[in-house]
Amino acid sequence: MTMYDIILKKRDGRTLTQSETEYFVKGFTDGSIPDYQASALLMAIFFRGLSHDETFLLTDAMMRSGDTADLSSIEGIKVDKHSTGGVGDKTTLIVGPLVAACGVPVAKMSGRGLGFTGGTVDKMESIPGMRTSLETDEFISLVNRVKLAVIGQTGHIAPADKKIYALRDVTATVDNLSLIASSVMSKKLASGSDAFVLDVKCGDGAFMETVEDAKALAALMVEIGTAGGKKTIALVTNMSRPLGRGVGNGIEVIEAIETLKGAGPKDITELSLRLASYMIFAGDAAASPEAGYRAAQDALSSGAGLDKLREFIAGQGGNPAVTDDYALFPKAAFSVAVRADADGYVGDLAARGIGIASRRSGAGRETKDEAIDLSAGVILHKTVGDAVKAGETLAVVCGNDEERLNEAAEIAKAAFRIGPEKRRPAPLIYAVIA
Amino acid sequence: MTMYDIILKKRDGRTLTQSETEYFVKGFTDGSIPDYQASALLMAIFFRGLSHDETFLLTDAMMRSGDTADLSSIEGIKVDKHSTGGVGDKTTLIVGPLVAACGVPVAKMSGRGLGFTGGTVDKMESIPGMRTSLETDEFISLVNRVKLAVIGQTGHIAPADKKIYALRDVTATVDNLSLIASSVMSKKLASGSDAFVLDVKCGDGAFMETVEDAKALAALMVEIGTAGGKKTIALVTNMSRPLGRGVGNGIEVIEAIETLKGAGPKDITELSLRLASYMIFAGDAAASPEAGYRAAQDALSSGAGLDKLREFIAGQGGNPAVTDDYALFPKAAFSVAVRADADGYVGDLAARGIGIASRRSGAGRETKDEAIDLSAGVILHKTVGDAVKAGETLAVVCGNDEERLNEAAEIAKAAFRIGPEKRRPAPLIYAVIA
Repeated sequence: MTMYDIILKKRDGRTLTQSETEYFVKGFTDGSIPDYQASALLMAIFFRGLSHDETFLLTDAMMRSGDTADLSSIEGIKVDKHSTGGVGDKTTLIVGPLVAACGVPVAKMSGRGLGFTGGTVDKMESIPGMRTSLETDEFISLVNRVKLAVIGQTGHIAPADKKIYALRDVTATVDNLSLIASSVMSKKLASGSDAFVLDVKCGDGAFMETVEDAKALAALMVEIGTAGGKKTIALVTNMSRPLGRGVGNGIEVIEAIETLKGAGPKDITELSLRLASYMIFAGDAAASPEAGYRAAQDALSSGAGLDKLREFIAGQGGNPAVTDDYALFPKAAFSVAVRADADGYVGDLAARGIGIASRRSGAGRETKDEAIDLSAGVILHKTVGDAVKAGETLAVVCGNDEERLNEAAEIAKAAFRIGPEKRRPAPLIYAVIA
Repeated sequence: MTMYDIILKKRDGRTLTQSETEYFVKGFTDGSIPDYQASALLMAIFFRGLSHDETFLLTDAMMRSGDTADLSSIEGIKVDKHSTGGVGDKTTLIVGPLVAACGVPVAKMSGRGLGFTGGTVDKMESIPGMRTSLETDEFISLVNRVKLAVIGQTGHIAPADKKIYALRDVTATVDNLSLIASSVMSKKLASGSDAFVLDVKCGDGAFMETVEDAKALAALMVEIGTAGGKKTIALVTNMSRPLGRGVGNGIEVIEAIETLKGAGPKDITELSLRLASYMIFAGDAAASPEAGYRAAQDALSSGAGLDKLREFIAGQGGNPAVTDDYALFPKAAFSVAVRADADGYVGDLAARGIGIASRRSGAGRETKDEAIDLSAGVILHKTVGDAVKAGETLAVVCGNDEERLNEAAEIAKAAFRIGPEKRRPAPLIYAVIA
């Protein structure tokens, strides 16, 4: 078997076998297959696609390329949640406490990633004292005690995926359903949880721009998870507009706290309850998703979710007083207001535009090793459907680099489409695939 | 402009501009664009193709990536011949002398290459004393005096093509019309001749297996040459069976000499005359290809071609006595006969199979830096259309490695298809495209 023959086979539209898939994944991971052959294969896969079987095999080979977490000493059915990434998505910090408050253990390994903001672990680091790197023993005992812990992903989980993703990122081979699905699921399957609820984002702020593509990706990931012996449920949700009113790191943690206090924006509250409902159901703490929804609502209204968040923060060394004193979060030195030019209604608010403004403000990484400004981001004063008057504040961008903030404000302004009529907003949830 | 954007653009089926094409060729040649991005682009080109304009731009950029030979101090219209490569193709050593004998200067730079045998310069090196590496001054003065010189291609001619070809070779992106055409023509256009006659091979022993593909490649190369301001004519010729009776290096030189003596196989004689006719016409030494054909025939029958071969050999330091004493060629220590199992007629004789047998015997390189056994190869005693009796010799393989010869004999034997009826052989020349 040679890598040349594998490239040729896929290029010509033939189906790769298990041993060929493993040969590629192993050889590329250990460096015996050079980058230039791997990228040729990835581009051939982009054009020819992978069958479902090939996708399972690729996922499996990537999953087995490194360590797989052993969470068997955690009691109960461990349920994990994964979002394909969006703008203003702070649901993990709401859903985690709600689900844990219902007794379902959540042992989450989360990425940092290159995005419009940091990943969940970056966001958590805006809480003073919060540790996101724990030894396995401490992580497991925390989950047993608190039912919730979130740590950064280690380098030993699916190293093949890490290497392949880095290559895809510079060779224009990211946006292929099979490659996206296998990348996500290889890490999930290696992470040791028993069930997964996937939030597949759809719209201009996400990988998948159309509902059809997002549904196809969701279905494929559910198939892979199920084939891997894990209960897997996917929601296809709207990412054509930002989620909630805050986009950033500290900014998003504050909105998550507000939501757990019952004062969050309607969209983020509803999405969190829906995601939690499926996690509670998947964790066998409710007989149906509907019963799971009621349990999550109870955890929210009773304050049990907020208490669980405080317990979770304290468990990982953070100061739980942040939930009552937002002045404890990193403060931005500067802010720039974005104002409306005319009267009307916000018709569209491009998630992607707000995401880029957020990254420009300093809240996200533009290159892999860049530091994040945890205070930076975009606070939306108006969103889709809101009435505005000329001169009114649409949004505020904040951070510590004035020049970048002025650019970010321009970008944020361009994301608003203000028209004469109030438009009915698109749905929040398009589909549930199980 | 970034290489990422160029890959994405081609991947999505859009047309590359001149500056994008140049950015890729320059950057890849100077090492600023990594192999893995280049191979992703090449695979995208494999799937999306290049328009004619893009192919011209790529050819031009590769041509200008290194030196271009200045042959302006050679008198007359310099005509070059190029074959896309086949099995038993020794026409350069016949056509060169015939055309030069008609007064048309041939200043040829020829590759070594990885093939079933060596390239023309390898074959020439089977002649004792022959030098294939000359300083430019000597090369030019030889062509002015003898009208014929053949040297190895220098590293400074189209280095981009060299680098791109090496990458295509290991990433399954060789067989794409635009990439093949631009590779050949970038070197031809850089080599300084004024006109080109291209021999595009077609059949299982060639890049192009079907007549349609070969015609399309020929038409594209003629367009590129013409767009580059050079008179370009292409012949599409049969490579489903070996050309002539000898396949190897010294073996082929001997057959070329025999052909110039008027005793060559019919196919090799006819193809040489046809190629020569277009070269003589392109070099303005005949008013039509038909008149060129008659001139080439005269040069053959009068012995002027054979004299010119001797002059050419002597000019490059070789011993012209080889034309009368074949014992001066490298001798093989071993030979193995391949015999017929049954009576019948040779229906098919797979060029590819005989080519592989030749390479196995030691006549060709299996890896880039391998030495060639100049004495090795295959001598066909029977070819398509010949009657055979059981036990009769079909072919003899010879060389210096007995073990490899036994393998080569097996491979050669499998290339023969012997059936009960005499079949009409396929045409020698399928099309002429000008």
